Amino acid sequence: MNETIKTQLNHRTIREFKDERIPEEIFKTLMEVARRAPTSNGMQSCSIIRVKDNDKKAVVSEVCNQEYVKRTPELLIFIVDQFRNMMIAKEKGGNVDNARDMDRFFQGFTDACLAAQNVVVAAESLGLGTVYFGSILNDPQRIIDTFDLPELTFPVVGLGIGYPNQEPQLKPRMDMSLRLFEDGYKIFDNYLKAIEDYDKEMTQYYDLRDANKRVDSFSDQIVTKLYNPIIKRQEILKTIRNQGFDLKI
Amino acid sequence: MNETIKTQLNHRTIREFKDERIPEEIFKTLMEVARRAPTSNGMQSCSIIRVKDNDKKAVVSEVCNQEYVKRTPELLIFIVDQFRNMMIAKEKGGNVDNARDMDRFFQGFTDACLAAQNVVVAAESLGLGTVYFGSILNDPQRIIDTFDLPELTFPVVGLGIGYPNQEPQLKPRMDMSLRLFEDGYKIFDNYLKAIEDYDKEMTQYYDLRDANKRVDSFSDQIVTKLYNPIIKRQEILKTIRNQGFDLKI
Repeated sequence: MNETIKTQLNHRTIREFKDERIPEEIFKTLMEVARRAPTSNGMQSCSIIRVKDNDKKAVVSEVCNQEYVKRTPELLIFIVDQFRNMMIAKEKGGNVDNARDMDRFFQGFTDACLAAQNVVVAAESLGLGTVYFGSILNDPQRIIDTFDLPELTFPVVGLGIGYPNQEPQLKPRMDMSLRLFEDGYKIFDNYLKAIEDYDKEMTQYYDLRDANKRVDSFSDQIVTKLYNPIIKRQEILKTIRNQGFDLKI
Repeated sequence: MNETIKTQLNHRTIREFKDERIPEEIFKTLMEVARRAPTSNGMQSCSIIRVKDNDKKAVVSEVCNQEYVKRTPELLIFIVDQFRNMMIAKEKGGNVDNARDMDRFFQGFTDACLAAQNVVVAAESLGLGTVYFGSILNDPQRIIDTFDLPELTFPVVGLGIGYPNQEPQLKPRMDMSLRLFEDGYKIFDNYLKAIEDYDKEMTQYYDLRDANKRVDSFSDQIVTKLYNPIIKRQEILKTIRNQGFDLKI
């Protein structure tokens, strides 16, 4: 097993960082890795907002409802960006109606995720820790307003990076037999039975977000999470449409 | 610069592979890397279809409209999977209405992309080559039917893996000054001017898909691509709704 894969198998979310900035040289390398990430059709339809302003960090922290967001040495927001390509085509006199398609949105969304994960692997290979903030989507409109995101852009995921100040336990994951299927989807007769061992394993795991208690079994977590929706998250398509994308439904 | 980052900066799409299977041991390692990929809320809401059947490979090849899809030694399809968690919660007697939210869809979509890119980096670190097939979305319904994808699942991206049988040139990418912004989105006065050098650089690049001619400038490519939409791609949300997701718009 090589160092790259060793790093990947050792991945864990880091939520507390040393009070130490990432050297600019290293940050540039990470951005070069983002730049070289695979991109749908070569269109490079994602961009990155680097959040340095403390007030803006505080807004993101509020949206995420996670206090430690403020304290991440580097905070990035990966966004769908069809605005740039639309402008390029427009300046060339091209027809840009189709830049508004949801197809384009998903291409940008995919690009943003691939770039983000490329950065995560690179960062971890350098001994840095990372934390994804999917919770920026608790209120996408506020993120859009805070960072002046123009039409045909949309926030995908936040990413915090820094030198780790904690050593969390490796989080248990369900067996791949539940997630990898040959030539067609496999439906199980009894899911609770299939995840029985995993359910037990999870209850042995301590989440550092609340280090004093063990976490619920996986199945109990799922029940709780599905029971507590966040309204603005449910209505994500409305905000996507407000950003100029044509839902075509 | 370490080996991981060297591999990432050297990324290129491989479309022709040696006629040689990936050892099962290595495939397992790649799946372990997928398993350990970051996942939104710990919910692990993506799955993978491993396509071994040649007839099914031929279908994917047709959907993608790319003949070489058939010849990839390993062909994977990463999918949104909220079906599994919905079933788990249901068996526990939980309320599963919110499993249908688009928010859940996007969590699964993000998970699928992060897992896929994790696999790509791992594969390349082992000397394997990879190719993404975003074009499985040319006809998502046909992919759904071919692989019996149940409700609350959806195909995200295809991935081919194998030992490279070609050495493509590194593809030029636009400068990060166009894609990385501090504390807010930056709109350029003149995009064609901003990408002038990049446009020139692209015309010097040979794409091995058609090795006899240089490619268009980036701006010309954008104009062409935006001009030629694929209807079923534009209407992706209809298929997502057919899979049981509640668009809530």
